[in-house]
Amino acid sequence: MATVSKVLNGRAHVAPETRARVEASLDRHHYRRPRRRHPARSGTAHLVFHEFDPVWAMEIIRGVEAACATAEVELVLSQLRGRHRPPDAWLDTILSRQPLGVLFVGCGPTRTQQDQLRRQRIPCVTVDTDSATSASVPTVGSNNWNGGLIAARHLLKLGHRRIAVISGPEDLLCSKARVDGFRSAHDEAGLAVDPALVRYGTFYLDAGYTHAMELLRLPDPPTAIFAGSDTQAMGVMRAARRLGLRLPDDLSVVGYDNLPVSAWIEPPLTTVDQPLRDMAGTAVRMLLDLAGEVELTSSRIDLGTELVVRESTAPPAPGR
Amino acid sequence: MATVSKVLNGRAHVAPETRARVEASLDRHHYRRPRRRHPARSGTAHLVFHEFDPVWAMEIIRGVEAACATAEVELVLSQLRGRHRPPDAWLDTILSRQPLGVLFVGCGPTRTQQDQLRRQRIPCVTVDTDSATSASVPTVGSNNWNGGLIAARHLLKLGHRRIAVISGPEDLLCSKARVDGFRSAHDEAGLAVDPALVRYGTFYLDAGYTHAMELLRLPDPPTAIFAGSDTQAMGVMRAARRLGLRLPDDLSVVGYDNLPVSAWIEPPLTTVDQPLRDMAGTAVRMLLDLAGEVELTSSRIDLGTELVVRESTAPPAPGR
Repeated sequence: MATVSKVLNGRAHVAPETRARVEASLDRHHYRRPRRRHPARSGTAHLVFHEFDPVWAMEIIRGVEAACATAEVELVLSQLRGRHRPPDAWLDTILSRQPLGVLFVGCGPTRTQQDQLRRQRIPCVTVDTDSATSASVPTVGSNNWNGGLIAARHLLKLGHRRIAVISGPEDLLCSKARVDGFRSAHDEAGLAVDPALVRYGTFYLDAGYTHAMELLRLPDPPTAIFAGSDTQAMGVMRAARRLGLRLPDDLSVVGYDNLPVSAWIEPPLTTVDQPLRDMAGTAVRMLLDLAGEVELTSSRIDLGTELVVRESTAPPAPGR
Repeated sequence: MATVSKVLNGRAHVAPETRARVEASLDRHHYRRPRRRHPARSGTAHLVFHEFDPVWAMEIIRGVEAACATAEVELVLSQLRGRHRPPDAWLDTILSRQPLGVLFVGCGPTRTQQDQLRRQRIPCVTVDTDSATSASVPTVGSNNWNGGLIAARHLLKLGHRRIAVISGPEDLLCSKARVDGFRSAHDEAGLAVDPALVRYGTFYLDAGYTHAMELLRLPDPPTAIFAGSDTQAMGVMRAARRLGLRLPDDLSVVGYDNLPVSAWIEPPLTTVDQPLRDMAGTAVRMLLDLAGEVELTSSRIDLGTELVVRESTAPPAPGR
């Protein structure tokens, strides 16, 4: 009985096999912990990052903190130092702390961990920045396909005909969705996309720089580049400068994310607004609904993406 | 007795006057709460910001989170939405939560709040980014005077003779310390500082832009500008670009902070490294020492500042 109680109450010091046997038995008997006495609007919410991106993590933290403050919920912050799944020691701590719920960014619990959390009535929500996360956890994302569509439409409308895209890593759904949106805009305009102008890379500056260097040295280089993030776009801008190209006269650049810094750089960056702060706030409200046993309207919400036009885009130079 | 117990245990629902009377009585009798049973290396640390700066707050959070993870301390994050003193409701919550300690950034407790925290054996440490915070709380800062000195020395060594400084707000000690270091470098070189080239403003982009516009339109404009932050430096870079000046050929710019973004912009920014992450980590370790009743070597520690030379500085154009 002591061991079962330990497992149920999320205490440490239970051998993994023992815990598994107890869990299996609980499952067989459809055990579910009684509703907690102190639902929503008190307690703490845990915000867990895969890792802290030096720039965009702050936008999510700001959104989560604001929503937590409104709900008078304490915010506990941690990161998994590059892991995508929390270690079991982390789960032991969470279970013993009994928070209102857990928000994941760029990471998520394993199926077993989900079961353990569910049994303790600790809800989880994912803020989806990369579409790499588990589909079985309620998720707030943004419309990546539309992001690719509106970026390409903008450049096509300006008169560009050779437009390159540097998306995120090829194994992420968000990267594919953006490229698909980019293609659809070309379809609308009756134009084919040159496969040589479609690239995938990390979201960081180096990827933007390296791909842009290659693209801009092609015999028939693009007149515009749509990057996978604002940071990547800064790599594109660096490559352009190294090659003596002026922005936007010689090259148009569109970023993705609309981080504060995108408005501060020279030239200020035209970019797709990924509403990270609103996504975070929405995720907190979903979490509080779940904690209060309010049923969710939908377990996946995508917020809209919008184009923010600044000064890094212009019509192509005459003759291009 | 119930009321005294409420005050002692940091419970809410005590009228402010009543609380004050009980506090006064406790003071008269030199009451101090017995040492807590669970000292350091367990529990939570609270990190409280004046407000979240979209760029540099992340550096502090990263430093605090890493140090907390090492010590297995949970990190609770909040901000005061622009206030410099926590409201009393905040203090009630803190007292009822009994954290290991509280870290303040850009804000700090009032004298009365300090007394209340001390009585509960909840230590406080300030991460000092602006020297505006209370001297009576242990503090980790950085050497601002040296920051001003090394920035000016670098520009003087490159051959600049008309160098402007845009510091932070004039009422902050850190702003004055940097300008003093800047002057001392000129003294070393046997040069006078032109008062028209010494400016104060906020740490944000607009201040850099506005002051730089004025400075660069002077009859005898500066050939180099030392800004008060990397964000301010981006405002200087914008002004330069609007006036058709090339960096670093026509104008050298030095920033302050060495945020990740300073390495990403074009040209990459020469800047003074304010070790925000190390300052944060040091503050956590001081807090844990205090929580463990280890006496501090010093109640004020300033970490060193260093110059990071990148591509925004060069000798002045010939004839200038």
